[in-house]
Amino acid sequence: MPNVERLSVGVIGLGSMGLGTALSLIEGDHDVHGCDVDPAASAALAAAGGRVGDSPAELASRCRVLIVLVVNAAQVEAVLFGDQGVVTTADPGTLIMQCATVAPDDARRYAQRLAAHGLLMLDAPVSGGAVKAREGALSVMASGSEAAFDLAAPVLDAMADTVHRLGDACGAGSSVKLVNQLLAGVHIAAAAEAVALGLRLGLDARTVYDVVRVSAGNSWMFENRVPHMLDGDYTPRSAVDIFVKDLGLVSDAGRALRFPLPISATALQQFVAASAAGHGGDDDAAVIKVFARLAGLQLPGESSAGDADAASSGGKS
Amino acid sequence: MPNVERLSVGVIGLGSMGLGTALSLIEGDHDVHGCDVDPAASAALAAAGGRVGDSPAELASRCRVLIVLVVNAAQVEAVLFGDQGVVTTADPGTLIMQCATVAPDDARRYAQRLAAHGLLMLDAPVSGGAVKAREGALSVMASGSEAAFDLAAPVLDAMADTVHRLGDACGAGSSVKLVNQLLAGVHIAAAAEAVALGLRLGLDARTVYDVVRVSAGNSWMFENRVPHMLDGDYTPRSAVDIFVKDLGLVSDAGRALRFPLPISATALQQFVAASAAGHGGDDDAAVIKVFARLAGLQLPGESSAGDADAASSGGKS
Repeated sequence: MPNVERLSVGVIGLGSMGLGTALSLIEGDHDVHGCDVDPAASAALAAAGGRVGDSPAELASRCRVLIVLVVNAAQVEAVLFGDQGVVTTADPGTLIMQCATVAPDDARRYAQRLAAHGLLMLDAPVSGGAVKAREGALSVMASGSEAAFDLAAPVLDAMADTVHRLGDACGAGSSVKLVNQLLAGVHIAAAAEAVALGLRLGLDARTVYDVVRVSAGNSWMFENRVPHMLDGDYTPRSAVDIFVKDLGLVSDAGRALRFPLPISATALQQFVAASAAGHGGDDDAAVIKVFARLAGLQLPGESSAGDADAASSGGKS
Repeated sequence: MPNVERLSVGVIGLGSMGLGTALSLIEGDHDVHGCDVDPAASAALAAAGGRVGDSPAELASRCRVLIVLVVNAAQVEAVLFGDQGVVTTADPGTLIMQCATVAPDDARRYAQRLAAHGLLMLDAPVSGGAVKAREGALSVMASGSEAAFDLAAPVLDAMADTVHRLGDACGAGSSVKLVNQLLAGVHIAAAAEAVALGLRLGLDARTVYDVVRVSAGNSWMFENRVPHMLDGDYTPRSAVDIFVKDLGLVSDAGRALRFPLPISATALQQFVAASAAGHGGDDDAAVIKVFARLAGLQLPGESSAGDADAASSGGKS
């Protein structure tokens, strides 16, 4: 077996991505530590044989590799550079795998600040969702030094199916992830627009799905998210507000670069509208509910738009 | 072999889709007739053993089934109902397979007007492009009466791989096609936006393609059209102006239905912008050239945006 090295690995952030990754690392026979602000997440790790720490600082005092799987740049900033952050205790030469989706400029700044503490960074956003995280089958878009890749190798082996090696400069991984998120977000919002138009035209939504899925209009996201719409199942696998954030990063990057991105800017507004309508925590397929709200469209799995509104405000239909 | 019946079939419109279809019908051992305003297209059919007619009326006087593969609703109107149109000579019971992408309301109106002449119609838009047309492997989104489907069966066998049977009402086929085109158009324009952002971020375009193609940002169109951008090859397989038309139909339908379609409306504007910049007849992947024009982005396969502008205006760089 390649890369058999029992490493102490710390996972900072035990949400659906972080916990799944931590569990695959345990199955990969690593010595896994984790921390999260939510005690239930920490308890789940402990139950699976992981060791819980109180803070990023405590994990950094124990681990050679730290995986950051938090939600946004503010959280990355806090877990790396805050009062109880990684840099307060990490030994020089410790590797930080920064896996959150952040702006490429932020990724570059983290790498510089970590280097000032003698720490290595891999700019390593992940793709694949909670299911792939749990299977140790994520896709990683990674850039960083040879030394960072060497130290990360056994960890990447356990958590990922595919590692796209994107050069030695931090920022490249986050740039490719940003481009991927532009498309992912646009494709979900476009899938919603297409299904909604189909319904408004009087078509059966499942028929639309069956035809488009084998036609030139298909996308990975159409195939993956439209079934949620067909089932009326908006249990969050990835939430509307994640795309408010990720398409927000795309939009910010475009503005900073003075580069027009009209389609993703419009898709962003659809996710913002869905969040405004109270669906920010729902599955991102709920972006289709904007059409139900605006145009009274009856979606699959719901009795009627009017009923749904009445129910959500506690009234009777 | 099923459906062995030698039918006289007329193909009205011998562009890349029509000629390819006519040739597959000849290979399917049908008695194939064709007409086109372009003598070169008619000559190509004759060279392959097809019989050329001077007008839709002449074809209709000879054929039991007529396939309409013209570009837009104005041409459909002319070939069916004009001075030399199908209805002037067709025997009652003749089947018209209407394969152009048109508004669902137009498809319904054609069917009613043809019925008044005792003619059958199959609302049968096709998908797959010129290559699939030539292979007899199109995908057909079809609706119409049992009688229309029965008469069409041997023709569909020869020209299509997949026939989506969408009920007995003309209009359904065109509705599903419209939804598919919404997605197809948005996905091409989004692919251009994503590749352009990647280039602006300093990424290698082929790397972006390789990563996204196996990630959640992939789409049928991303996979199919981005190689044209990578090769700088804008030879038209399907032109920018086709999506000015098709996303225009989507936009028209939304406006008529009072149904908002913000993402496809924005994608439409990108194709209009590309057409405004002189790329209406280029491959639809040329929608990415909007970014080269606006932001001086150097695209793969071009020396520089400045050079390209200078060359196209006859100047020197």
